[in-house]
Amino acid sequence: MPPTITAFESSPDRGRGQARDMRVRWAFEEVGQPYDVRLLSFAPMKAPAHRARHPFGQIPTYEDGDLTLFESGAIVLHIAERHAGLLPKDANARARAIAWMFAALSTVEPPIVELGMAMLFERDRSWYAERLPMLEERVRTRLGELSRHISGADWLDGAFSAGDLVMVTVLRRLNTSGLLDEYPDIAAYVARGEARPAFRRAFDAQLAVFKAASQS
Amino acid sequence: MPPTITAFESSPDRGRGQARDMRVRWAFEEVGQPYDVRLLSFAPMKAPAHRARHPFGQIPTYEDGDLTLFESGAIVLHIAERHAGLLPKDANARARAIAWMFAALSTVEPPIVELGMAMLFERDRSWYAERLPMLEERVRTRLGELSRHISGADWLDGAFSAGDLVMVTVLRRLNTSGLLDEYPDIAAYVARGEARPAFRRAFDAQLAVFKAASQS
Repeated sequence: MPPTITAFESSPDRGRGQARDMRVRWAFEEVGQPYDVRLLSFAPMKAPAHRARHPFGQIPTYEDGDLTLFESGAIVLHIAERHAGLLPKDANARARAIAWMFAALSTVEPPIVELGMAMLFERDRSWYAERLPMLEERVRTRLGELSRHISGADWLDGAFSAGDLVMVTVLRRLNTSGLLDEYPDIAAYVARGEARPAFRRAFDAQLAVFKAASQS
Repeated sequence: MPPTITAFESSPDRGRGQARDMRVRWAFEEVGQPYDVRLLSFAPMKAPAHRARHPFGQIPTYEDGDLTLFESGAIVLHIAERHAGLLPKDANARARAIAWMFAALSTVEPPIVELGMAMLFERDRSWYAERLPMLEERVRTRLGELSRHISGADWLDGAFSAGDLVMVTVLRRLNTSGLLDEYPDIAAYVARGEARPAFRRAFDAQLAVFKAASQS
């Protein structure tokens, strides 16, 4: 039996591949491993049965025999440790690829999520117009630093790795913000990730779920 | 030669152990390994020599022979993988401990940092009083979920692990907010972490650095 992950029955991003199951689907596709998906709507996601899998009541989770995991970063790392294709064999390069996973999630993603949350939930507040430039500036700081690091390279550190996989999914959250266009090196980097056949297969799989839900 | 990490020459937290080198110092102490520290003031931290170690110009970094790492989570994981004491031997328990590291950094820390940033940088803004309860509520959501998970257990998943180490350092950022007092299970959990001899040694070491800087 392949591992089972959980995903939104009807993703709030309307199939744009920005929910966090996308990372895990992409990882499975990169290493050529099959997986099953259990779909959840909002209420079951917050119910005790799912909280036992994920204490914070979110998706994705990962179940394989008697192992249950949560957190997309941890699941991607677990897949990458068990199957070739996402981590370099050299020990130092492997450690650096994992460092980029943490950088994507701890350093680059938080200001991007904060900007996204404000755009979703604070648009009608009196402070929105004044605060927005500050939030965009925090994101620009990270994008500028990342752009200087990449500057012409294809990937973050040598060959494509789990670090790139997570970083590209983090940066894709900015797809509709216009901010990526200000950093051509980063826009090209994200496009390189999106052009990978494994990304396309994962993207199509999550889009098919959203389309099925919206037709039912 | 022991590994060398970087830390603030004069930490903005005034020696309260909330800078991210604390996690790495604590990890070294838990596994009983020596380490050297190179102190950095703000300007060198943002200069090219340090950017080559840390593309985002932050502390801590980790150097050991020809390996350079950044991101406190990645450094803690690297130490935990190489020395006994921070990850269970059982493969499934090990994967779950790593999942808790990611949960601490990706799910629990962001709303705590967001609250902290607002308290530091938006206190004089017109919206501060209205926005603060919203930010506190986001933190409370995570603390409530974490509290339900812990509920009487000593640690997040069996024995103390790198997941607990990172989670306790994340929660300690709330020390002066009053929010931890609302969740006695979590306050007790943080206190258990802080009572570990390895934590005390790491705390004293970073405090000594701050005291030396403030006396010079």
